[in-house]
Amino acid sequence: MAEMKIKIYTVGGTIDKIYFDRKSTYEVGEPKIGEILEEANVTVLYEISTILHKDSLDMTDEDRQMIFDMVSSEEHPRIILTHGTDTMIQTAEKLSSIPGKVIVLTGAMEPARFKYSDAAFNIGCAVAAVQLLNPGVYIAMNGRIFNSGSVKKNQEKNWFEEL
Amino acid sequence: MAEMKIKIYTVGGTIDKIYFDRKSTYEVGEPKIGEILEEANVTVLYEISTILHKDSLDMTDEDRQMIFDMVSSEEHPRIILTHGTDTMIQTAEKLSSIPGKVIVLTGAMEPARFKYSDAAFNIGCAVAAVQLLNPGVYIAMNGRIFNSGSVKKNQEKNWFEEL
Amino acid sequence: MAEMKIKIYTVGGTIDKIYFDRKSTYEVGEPKIGEILEEANVTVLYEISTILHKDSLDMTDEDRQMIFDMVSSEEHPRIILTHGTDTMIQTAEKLSSIPGKVIVLTGAMEPARFKYSDAAFNIGCAVAAVQLLNPGVYIAMNGRIFNSGSVKKNQEKNWFEEL
Amino acid sequence: MAEMKIKIYTVGGTIDKIYFDRKSTYEVGEPKIGEILEEANVTVLYEISTILHKDSLDMTDEDRQMIFDMVSSEEHPRIILTHGTDTMIQTAEKLSSIPGKVIVLTGAMEPARFKYSDAAFNIGCAVAAVQLLNPGVYIAMNGRIFNSGSVKKNQEKNWFEEL
Repeated sequence: MAEMKIKIYTVGGTIDKIYFDRKSTYEVGEPKIGEILEEANVTVLYEISTILHKDSLDMTDEDRQMIFDMVSSEEHPRIILTHGTDTMIQTAEKLSSIPGKVIVLTGAMEPARFKYSDAAFNIGCAVAAVQLLNPGVYIAMNGRIFNSGSVKKNQEKNWFEEL
Repeated sequence: MAEMKIKIYTVGGTIDKIYFDRKSTYEVGEPKIGEILEEANVTVLYEISTILHKDSLDMTDEDRQMIFDMVSSEEHPRIILTHGTDTMIQTAEKLSSIPGKVIVLTGAMEPARFKYSDAAFNIGCAVAAVQLLNPGVYIAMNGRIFNSGSVKKNQEKNWFEEL
Repeated sequence: MAEMKIKIYTVGGTIDKIYFDRKSTYEVGEPKIGEILEEANVTVLYEISTILHKDSLDMTDEDRQMIFDMVSSEEHPRIILTHGTDTMIQTAEKLSSIPGKVIVLTGAMEPARFKYSDAAFNIGCAVAAVQLLNPGVYIAMNGRIFNSGSVKKNQEKNWFEEL
Repeated sequence: MAEMKIKIYTVGGTIDKIYFDRKSTYEVGEPKIGEILEEANVTVLYEISTILHKDSLDMTDEDRQMIFDMVSSEEHPRIILTHGTDTMIQTAEKLSSIPGKVIVLTGAMEPARFKYSDAAFNIGCAVAAVQLLNPGVYIAMNGRIFNSGSVKKNQEKNWFEEL
């Protein structure tokens, strides 16, 4: 496979959450995807840009428009977006009209800072998927690659599944 | 994407290594891939079978023949093999004559029991790749999906790269 | 040193916090001290009882009275209490009139479920302190053993220090 | 308790072991005690010096003499020594003639780099013990504080116990 570059955008979500004892609460911290890619000694070229540090429940239409604008104008056609799981599907739908790009959204149910987290596994799925898929918008969660528009989050089971 | 089942074989390697203080040495322990898939709450159907618990430097021609026989006769066409990195390429080449199956080999440079390890990320890559690729034999390491026969392990850099 | 038994009570706090993606919040989960003592292969006899699962900011006077009653009537004179850090000092003061017992309170600033947490270290301090000290009420945090009544939590620095 | 300073010497052992996939073996890496003390946000003053990076089975009489000389001439009277478990007892005996100092040896059965390790707990025990004990040489392992000269390592059980 030919050399390619992956563009990574981060917008927040559980994957990046830290815990503040002082406030007795969790907040979205610095993105963890860079550290995970370094631990895995990833040799594909990649570049990370942070757009937002938000819990995805707090994302607004303006936020999604900003993400849309940045992804649309991105020169690299292979894009990963780390995102909170609660509104990942809405953002995927917002991006679905962007032509000619492979866009993979992923995130985590457990913060990457936990001993046990789905973060590194999910990012691994996204990194493989973004290199292997044809243009389109996809969600990589729970070991599956869903097409945007045919996936929902099952709140009770706490996983993503086909519509 | 239609429902599918992934067959996973484990043969040992660094990914499964544990440390024995009593012997002041590392040994290959029980496979960790099942735990990693559970932590990631993977909803793709999968089945894990253990063939060997070996450091891949200790694998013999007979071992590789046994792996070949089991993979050849496997009914599920999507197969992941967790394997030591030192002879992963030889095993991939041994399997390359098997037709009609997607076979992805992966492993780790750091044991999965470490706080920081490439194990979960690499398995994430393999799980996505085995679902998305056409039949063939592949190695998923360092965030890349290599075709068997066009990859080597760079001992000095401690990564896999194209021939 | 002669064989002794340590009685451990858990009442909640950050040390036991888990994260619920479903609710986008944390909650106090099952006590982690047992797991930490098993990982350390602790051979001192100990017994763990759970009194509460509370964030210490939510503890009431009734809760503190219940803890007082259980600790007062405890037959083993060496007692560790894992507790949230925000009101650990109030509980220590409440217990300070109990005679003839070594009572050590500890907890954590980062949940024990994180890759990096002060939980195991703090519990190690408490386990040594409870065996070595004379009767009294103590707080083991930040690598120091404070006497109840001469310690405060510095909210800005996020540590315990002498009054 | 008055302000004091703890002097920490590291000589290697399992606690500091790393894994080299390239060589399919482990080696003693950089000392981890500093990182553990930082994670626990320890506010006691301390200073760390590295004497050796050795598996304790490889330590010679000359090594032990060097440790003896450094510890004897150390100005701070409260000293922690992180050490491999296999010959920790011999080193403790070598140091037992040093008067007027509290010397606590500790280490780990599982490398500190593992997700699950006794390292942070054991160091917590040692930090509390070195502040609370009278002059003498002690071993802090398995949640217990042993006097040098009355302890052995039970190889079969993989723990320290009284003679």
